[in-house]
Amino acid sequence: MTASYFIGVDLGGTNVRAARFTRQSHTPEAKTKIPTEGARGVDHVYGRIEAAIREVAPSDLAQVAGVGIAVPGPTDPYAGVVMKAPNIPDWINIPLRQVMRSRLGRPVFIGNDANLAALGEWKFGAGRGHTDVLYLTISTGIGGGVISGNRLLLGVRGLAAEVGHMQVDPRGPLCGCGQLGHIESFASGTAIAKTAQASLRDGQGEDSQVLKLVDGDISRVTSAVVGQAAQAGDGFACDLIAEAGTMLGQAVASMLHAYNPSIVIFGGGVSMLGDLLLEPTRRAVRRYAMSEAYWKDCPLVLAALGDDAGLVGAGALVMEETPQ
Amino acid sequence: MTASYFIGVDLGGTNVRAARFTRQSHTPEAKTKIPTEGARGVDHVYGRIEAAIREVAPSDLAQVAGVGIAVPGPTDPYAGVVMKAPNIPDWINIPLRQVMRSRLGRPVFIGNDANLAALGEWKFGAGRGHTDVLYLTISTGIGGGVISGNRLLLGVRGLAAEVGHMQVDPRGPLCGCGQLGHIESFASGTAIAKTAQASLRDGQGEDSQVLKLVDGDISRVTSAVVGQAAQAGDGFACDLIAEAGTMLGQAVASMLHAYNPSIVIFGGGVSMLGDLLLEPTRRAVRRYAMSEAYWKDCPLVLAALGDDAGLVGAGALVMEETPQ
Repeated sequence: MTASYFIGVDLGGTNVRAARFTRQSHTPEAKTKIPTEGARGVDHVYGRIEAAIREVAPSDLAQVAGVGIAVPGPTDPYAGVVMKAPNIPDWINIPLRQVMRSRLGRPVFIGNDANLAALGEWKFGAGRGHTDVLYLTISTGIGGGVISGNRLLLGVRGLAAEVGHMQVDPRGPLCGCGQLGHIESFASGTAIAKTAQASLRDGQGEDSQVLKLVDGDISRVTSAVVGQAAQAGDGFACDLIAEAGTMLGQAVASMLHAYNPSIVIFGGGVSMLGDLLLEPTRRAVRRYAMSEAYWKDCPLVLAALGDDAGLVGAGALVMEETPQ
Repeated sequence: MTASYFIGVDLGGTNVRAARFTRQSHTPEAKTKIPTEGARGVDHVYGRIEAAIREVAPSDLAQVAGVGIAVPGPTDPYAGVVMKAPNIPDWINIPLRQVMRSRLGRPVFIGNDANLAALGEWKFGAGRGHTDVLYLTISTGIGGGVISGNRLLLGVRGLAAEVGHMQVDPRGPLCGCGQLGHIESFASGTAIAKTAQASLRDGQGEDSQVLKLVDGDISRVTSAVVGQAAQAGDGFACDLIAEAGTMLGQAVASMLHAYNPSIVIFGGGVSMLGDLLLEPTRRAVRRYAMSEAYWKDCPLVLAALGDDAGLVGAGALVMEETPQ
């Protein structure tokens, strides 16, 4: 009996999700979700991860080729250590790979969730068949991953491809990381909400849908509200999304110079706005790339796997790391 | 008799240089230099490249494992085509690899000169033993190359790692490529000269060495002049270099987020200023990187191979591409 099952785990601050895959497909044969929240201490979180894995794994773990775990924070895949998972209490310098390996007795591989989402989109989603992929996930923050020459770009400690933290304007807003003017501080969901609130407080958008959707309470404006108004054709909201898209395109132009991919894939909640966001992004890329060789054969597209990208990517990581 | 010689060629707008290496060392066994300038037409340049190669190669070309050519411009190493060599007349979409392969009857590999300089510094220079290297060459412009996971980062058409063209300020000066605010437009030799000239015209630096070195003729101020004055301790010149170094550090911080290298190597004429440039760069990196994990174990150092980096890298490319 060969070890033909691949377990993917997507560890989040709210839930830990696990799925069982075979090499043939990204559609899980089994899937589960267990809350992470409420776990008391680091060991308790380990226990929940193990429980999720055992729920989807065959009872004979020897049939499992390995377990891949997508972690929400900077993660050293070589050392197998989570440096920090900001949304999970006390998760600092956690030797996750070693702990799970001794609990399960099977090979364990770990990676940053945005990197593994990139891997998932490349192996099974919008990036199939490409050798060089740039993936960005735009939600609360901006994360991402890069496939370069058919391999995940990791850097020496797995900290490469932090594409949300390319500085695009030294005089720009405060970023979630504490620095100024990173693209995350211009085009993330958080940034869109902040800009919308500031504009409304400035007296702009008085007649906009945005204000109506929150009954005039500016503090309740989120990027989802702006997005909803934009999709309904509200001019104020469309302009805000277009501004974010334009800044995003400027940053993506620099990323094309950095990585020269043949496709750029956008995932995450904010990307669901589709062309409202991506058309301004495409225009800015064409304007700011230093040669058309960078964008001519490089489409900017939406992700295909949705919320499952990290989960699928965690399974794909095991497929990459274990011989066929 | 095995093919144990490796030929490296560094094609420049002024000269074509060639050298013969063995796998053991980056010190050439033979070396030559032939002018490129004055060559009439594309074929004539081919002829000079071939002549340089034959001068250093053994008479029996079967002893040559292959020829590597470093090209001064965007180059597709997969297709073997030079997209554009701005300093060589009419060099647009040149099928260099195929032409030289049929002239020599030996394997030929080509690459962008800054990429190959990075390869040279990694295999035989300041980057030896590292798995992830960021190399920048700071001269008239800013170029570079990246080694990621023991492999040259190329992208889908060999256009990756254009590290001089990361936008650092959308309101910045005009870059050599036609875009605005790339790091090249702040910290290249050309940029330093322009900034110096503009400051002097503004009436700053009236008592500086810079003005004396050019007998008061501001139009004659170059980065070399500014560098000379800075090395003599001139405050005006030191400030100019420090400003360039600070901008460079800001850009390098973003590059650390992009590539997560374990060493950053600076080559090119302007880097010869050493700590006058690099200390401000280091300070800015520490200030602008989003976590010390990026710079703590990542020294910023000077290149080791000097002008030979491209030549050595071209030889190293053949060693990488041909089995041992």
